[in-house]
Amino acid sequence: MIKKKFINNTDTIVEETIQGFVTAYSDRIKKLDNNNVVIQKNLKKDTVSVIIGNGSGHEPACIGFVGENMLAANAYGGIFAAPGPDTIYAAIEATEMGKGVCVLISNHAGDIINSKMAIDMAEDDDLNCKSVILYDDIASAPKEEITERRGTAGTLFNYKITSSYAAEGHSLDEVVKMAKKVRDNTRTLTVATVPGTSPITGYKMFEINDDEIEIGMGVHGEAAAFTMKIASSKEIAKVMCEKLIADKPYQSGDEITVLVNGCGQTTMMELLIFFKDVEGILKENGISVYKPAIGNFITTQEMGGIALGFCKLDPGMKKMWEKQTDAPGFKI
Amino acid sequence: MIKKKFINNTDTIVEETIQGFVTAYSDRIKKLDNNNVVIQKNLKKDTVSVIIGNGSGHEPACIGFVGENMLAANAYGGIFAAPGPDTIYAAIEATEMGKGVCVLISNHAGDIINSKMAIDMAEDDDLNCKSVILYDDIASAPKEEITERRGTAGTLFNYKITSSYAAEGHSLDEVVKMAKKVRDNTRTLTVATVPGTSPITGYKMFEINDDEIEIGMGVHGEAAAFTMKIASSKEIAKVMCEKLIADKPYQSGDEITVLVNGCGQTTMMELLIFFKDVEGILKENGISVYKPAIGNFITTQEMGGIALGFCKLDPGMKKMWEKQTDAPGFKI
Repeated sequence: MIKKKFINNTDTIVEETIQGFVTAYSDRIKKLDNNNVVIQKNLKKDTVSVIIGNGSGHEPACIGFVGENMLAANAYGGIFAAPGPDTIYAAIEATEMGKGVCVLISNHAGDIINSKMAIDMAEDDDLNCKSVILYDDIASAPKEEITERRGTAGTLFNYKITSSYAAEGHSLDEVVKMAKKVRDNTRTLTVATVPGTSPITGYKMFEINDDEIEIGMGVHGEAAAFTMKIASSKEIAKVMCEKLIADKPYQSGDEITVLVNGCGQTTMMELLIFFKDVEGILKENGISVYKPAIGNFITTQEMGGIALGFCKLDPGMKKMWEKQTDAPGFKI
Repeated sequence: MIKKKFINNTDTIVEETIQGFVTAYSDRIKKLDNNNVVIQKNLKKDTVSVIIGNGSGHEPACIGFVGENMLAANAYGGIFAAPGPDTIYAAIEATEMGKGVCVLISNHAGDIINSKMAIDMAEDDDLNCKSVILYDDIASAPKEEITERRGTAGTLFNYKITSSYAAEGHSLDEVVKMAKKVRDNTRTLTVATVPGTSPITGYKMFEINDDEIEIGMGVHGEAAAFTMKIASSKEIAKVMCEKLIADKPYQSGDEITVLVNGCGQTTMMELLIFFKDVEGILKENGISVYKPAIGNFITTQEMGGIALGFCKLDPGMKKMWEKQTDAPGFKI
């Protein structure tokens, strides 16, 4: 299988990616010596650190979200595979600045098992640490089973808002409360147009018919909720907005922020057109948009598609959302 | 031809893209009423404005580079087509803040003709305005015919450094001098792996054999300098660095900044691995890297590939390069 990717060795992709990252941003970010953990160089004392462990292959997520007013550290796993509990533990230990560590967990089986184990290890060592499980993908389970839903691109709202809040010096309990509030205010739905390829095998990760798109696909190509014929940006935006608003009754008068997340190869031009269509539909519903995030934040290699996320904001959350960050992978 | 793109109407792609952009960033950016010009809302009086007119289809370039310490405005053309002289003129007129306007021109026939005409119109109206033609692509003409070279992704150095310098209040002549210095210190070479598709026709823009990559391709798929078999990131980095260093003798002891620009569908993981390989080769040559720019800045739809740009920096240029900007499409 010929792989048209800029890699050297499938066994060292993760290590080389980290090496590139910490070389590029050495003014503010480093790697822990013995673990695949990317961490801020100058963590603030007496603040809660917010961290996450996640599989790689979704760059800039989540290494690109390490920075002031964003993640304190990212435990970086194999391609589409959660990091081991030892790696997540190392991230907890290294970021404990006296007020505890809030471990965010994107709801996938491996992430849950390994994060929970890491937290048990940390508690055994008297490290103060709590976790919040993030589930935002409305396609992966009905509302009655909301905690079964997968974590997907809307977790970005938490990386930004909760971390900025933590940096203000709030207690671990308060930070956990904020993380849950952001999660509960968030809903995401993804549309996929073309598959990405695995950097390890060179094979396509899934198949989509030439004239179809898939609504509700997960970040690893997990089965979609339904298939539709390729349609205009406006038509797709309408289908997706309706499903999101039906799930979480964002109401007339609400102010929300919107994530239009490119999955990999969808162009910025398309993301902007699609955002314009989404904004129009929301306006018709009396919902206004505050400082959207438009770009490739959480990708699935060179998959085509868009993850559309909504997060209802109150004035306090707005301030946290827009706080400047030097995390390389985030800008609004 | 089935187009798997999030668009509504091929006739209104450009207008809808602008509409999405100015809606998203309405806190700081607006569109001129009667022209496809995207412009900063709060331009500083008594500073030179730096602008460019360019074809669309390369987003975030160049609308995404409008912001404080970057472009004052961008005259936005059709897909891969230069904006008309009237549009560029409108950008000049709207950004004249009392010290004149520096019009950057990326060296392509249409851009030159229309920009020059716009400048003639501006001069007839006693607007103070000068232009600098940017040519950085070493593959498109030999060194002896350097002014024949195409403008490509390395023009980004100029958008940032020259604009930040202008924002400090320097005269138009000084700003023009800086633009020429940045240009003369810059070299770029592009490698393409897979073609992008036209959002208008849905056809591939060019063809590349499955087991080959093309070195020296232009931003619109202009003929490459040569073809090579697909190779490792390190091997490709070596070929490209050697050609860049042979063209502009970056020397041991030099400090340069590096652009690793994804052309569209190349993943951030690959960009980071490739950057690491480039940095290693430069280090072997005694050249150190200052705050690289790694990301999708100047794309050719969903083309696969990387544009590698070098720009030698002196202490003054370093400060301009790293100055914060709120331009949505740029972060280092």
